[in-house]
Amino acid sequence: MSIAKPLPFSAETIARIASEYPTPFYLYDERGMRETSRRLLKAFSWNPHFKEYFAVKATPNPHIINLLKEEGLGADCSSLPELLLSESVGITGEDIMFTSNNTLAHEYAAAKKLGAIINLDDITHIDYLREGVGLPDILCFRYNPGSAREGNVIIGKPEEAKYGFTEAQLFEGYRKLRDLGVKRFGLHTMVASNELNGDFFVETARMVFDLAVRISKEIGVRIEFVNLGGGIGIPYRPEQKPVDLDVVGKGVKALYDQIVVPAGLDPLKVFMENGRMITGPHGFLVTRAVHHKHIYRDYVGVDACMSNLMRPGMYGAYHHITVLGKESAPHDRIVDVVGSLCENNDKFAINRPLPVVERGDLLVIHDAGAHGHAMGFQYNGKLRSAELLVRPDGSVKKIRRAETVDDYFATLDFSEFSQK
Amino acid sequence: MSIAKPLPFSAETIARIASEYPTPFYLYDERGMRETSRRLLKAFSWNPHFKEYFAVKATPNPHIINLLKEEGLGADCSSLPELLLSESVGITGEDIMFTSNNTLAHEYAAAKKLGAIINLDDITHIDYLREGVGLPDILCFRYNPGSAREGNVIIGKPEEAKYGFTEAQLFEGYRKLRDLGVKRFGLHTMVASNELNGDFFVETARMVFDLAVRISKEIGVRIEFVNLGGGIGIPYRPEQKPVDLDVVGKGVKALYDQIVVPAGLDPLKVFMENGRMITGPHGFLVTRAVHHKHIYRDYVGVDACMSNLMRPGMYGAYHHITVLGKESAPHDRIVDVVGSLCENNDKFAINRPLPVVERGDLLVIHDAGAHGHAMGFQYNGKLRSAELLVRPDGSVKKIRRAETVDDYFATLDFSEFSQK
Repeated sequence: MSIAKPLPFSAETIARIASEYPTPFYLYDERGMRETSRRLLKAFSWNPHFKEYFAVKATPNPHIINLLKEEGLGADCSSLPELLLSESVGITGEDIMFTSNNTLAHEYAAAKKLGAIINLDDITHIDYLREGVGLPDILCFRYNPGSAREGNVIIGKPEEAKYGFTEAQLFEGYRKLRDLGVKRFGLHTMVASNELNGDFFVETARMVFDLAVRISKEIGVRIEFVNLGGGIGIPYRPEQKPVDLDVVGKGVKALYDQIVVPAGLDPLKVFMENGRMITGPHGFLVTRAVHHKHIYRDYVGVDACMSNLMRPGMYGAYHHITVLGKESAPHDRIVDVVGSLCENNDKFAINRPLPVVERGDLLVIHDAGAHGHAMGFQYNGKLRSAELLVRPDGSVKKIRRAETVDDYFATLDFSEFSQK
Repeated sequence: MSIAKPLPFSAETIARIASEYPTPFYLYDERGMRETSRRLLKAFSWNPHFKEYFAVKATPNPHIINLLKEEGLGADCSSLPELLLSESVGITGEDIMFTSNNTLAHEYAAAKKLGAIINLDDITHIDYLREGVGLPDILCFRYNPGSAREGNVIIGKPEEAKYGFTEAQLFEGYRKLRDLGVKRFGLHTMVASNELNGDFFVETARMVFDLAVRISKEIGVRIEFVNLGGGIGIPYRPEQKPVDLDVVGKGVKALYDQIVVPAGLDPLKVFMENGRMITGPHGFLVTRAVHHKHIYRDYVGVDACMSNLMRPGMYGAYHHITVLGKESAPHDRIVDVVGSLCENNDKFAINRPLPVVERGDLLVIHDAGAHGHAMGFQYNGKLRSAELLVRPDGSVKKIRRAETVDDYFATLDFSEFSQK
């Protein structure tokens, strides 16, 4: 019935941390993030310029971006604050890809100033960038295959997505860039999110390799890199299997040898921009049981809420929950695990088999390291939690403080009321 | 095809404001909020102690709470920050109802200290409150009718909702309070959200009146007030009609005369806790068209995004859009109106007929005054916008400044990186 999901820390370690820091908090496993980064880089080590641009939006914390930088990862940024975050830890120049849509000129200006590779989302942005900021030497386009490719379940149908160029626009766009004197070119796509079928990424590589060859031949520009996007999923459910990165890497290499090399495009740099797979499995939301409730269903109330982790409430997403110290107790209670928001979708789990939970028990919500804290809001006056990093030596470093009421009120001016 | 929705301000007025304040911003109509408050109070003026506790979560801005206070409204609070917000404008004591769920002791303590009416969400909270904080003189319980009542479309089935007491628990709870020496009692329910059928609220009154009579008789406690909850909807779509408040008020009065008076419970105070209907129609998100995009669909890109207004992306909610100055132009373009978030649900409208939109045009997104700014997040490094209040004399007052990058970074410590 219940399948356990392993934790990188012992129950004692987590309990000790929870005695020093008030719950709820995020706990990140530095070792795990480093090892996962290395596995991805190794799978693509056949491509000498392979680069993983970590999707900053997944976990926009400079301490985490910095340790990923130490592993050789770059930064995939989508906004000015994300560019500043990357710059703050010394990620600059072509170690940044700026992939944004419906972008404002001042954000392009910041990306260009940093020397980031700018990835245009639309053909009209060529002129917008040129007139507002000036064209850089290197530019990339985002391709949206439309109905020529099925998207995956999460990201939906490409033809309904607001992103990217059509194929015809790509050809028109590269021709235009060439004529405008741009010297270096990249090609990008992103057609999956949280996909666990590794073949999907191999097929994406086939699509962009083929396109890169046709563009090079027809337009006479040299495509220097392809960015396969991100979207490698993680096994949120204990019965799911992670993507075998080595198989993906080998599959992409086979196509590279089959398509890219014969066309004379070798060396072609291969890039990716995963977020979720790098940090997702290595972040945990630790919360404490506060209340029981027994009405038409049975509830366990915890001191975290949707503000700390939106995915279950927003998407109905599954996140595994471990009740610390009760890992091997019978999971014979069916409960909803709920937060305190005045929204009935503020539930971390619905009809979930758990052991008997007592007030004060610590619950660990798994796979919260990506799109977790980052998506939090302050609705109902709820405050966002601290983030803690567990170093490989076991020490704990606070990498983000919890919000206070003053943070919540920061954009308000109460002076006229205090004078009353 | 296109049905216009009126605006309280002229296109010239909004354009002038947009020349003084950078877009996007929220614009609130003070006159509209005051008039709507008065209409609600008038509809229930037959009940001498009728009180509307404004649901602070809908629009947690002290300047707005303060003007509603001037109209005689109290505050429905669900968290410590919302209590502090209400206190800051001088709403204290029984002008506050504290309706929360899965509540922490320190929040109960703050509510009790302010003299707020505490509304318990669960029977176990009687002991939790008593042991942690001490019982106040007055207490209220939230009733969840379960399958005895159909919820409305928005709030869902009561038996699947995490809120409130069962009927049996209500009787047990009041008996317990009585024996513990509590002197004053209220009864609360909340079974609808954004409901446009006025009969629904009359039926809710029947349910709680009937219950109040039975509790009074069986337990021998006097129920001093009933709170019918909130949930009065607003016509988001131009073809929808608002709830006729006078009809609801009269319907509730008829039941009061039929059930409450003969049972000897008169005077029974009637309370409500609407949020959306008070501020929703009187708040507008003003944004500027930045980009066009034509791929498999046609897009208008604006400078606001989901961070400024989550309802369309999160719930697929309809919000009417007026393109300023083009109100009577043919609405013959079918477009998606999109923000810049790297999420494909960052769309304010899907397949919406609009006039030709040019770069620089101002778009007004209607009915954003409740659960609008309040639900914003900072995902993708997006910043939340300013709020402006248009006074009855036409002057504009900034009641919340826009967030800055420094706000976004407020909980981070960059010092170790700057020393590099």
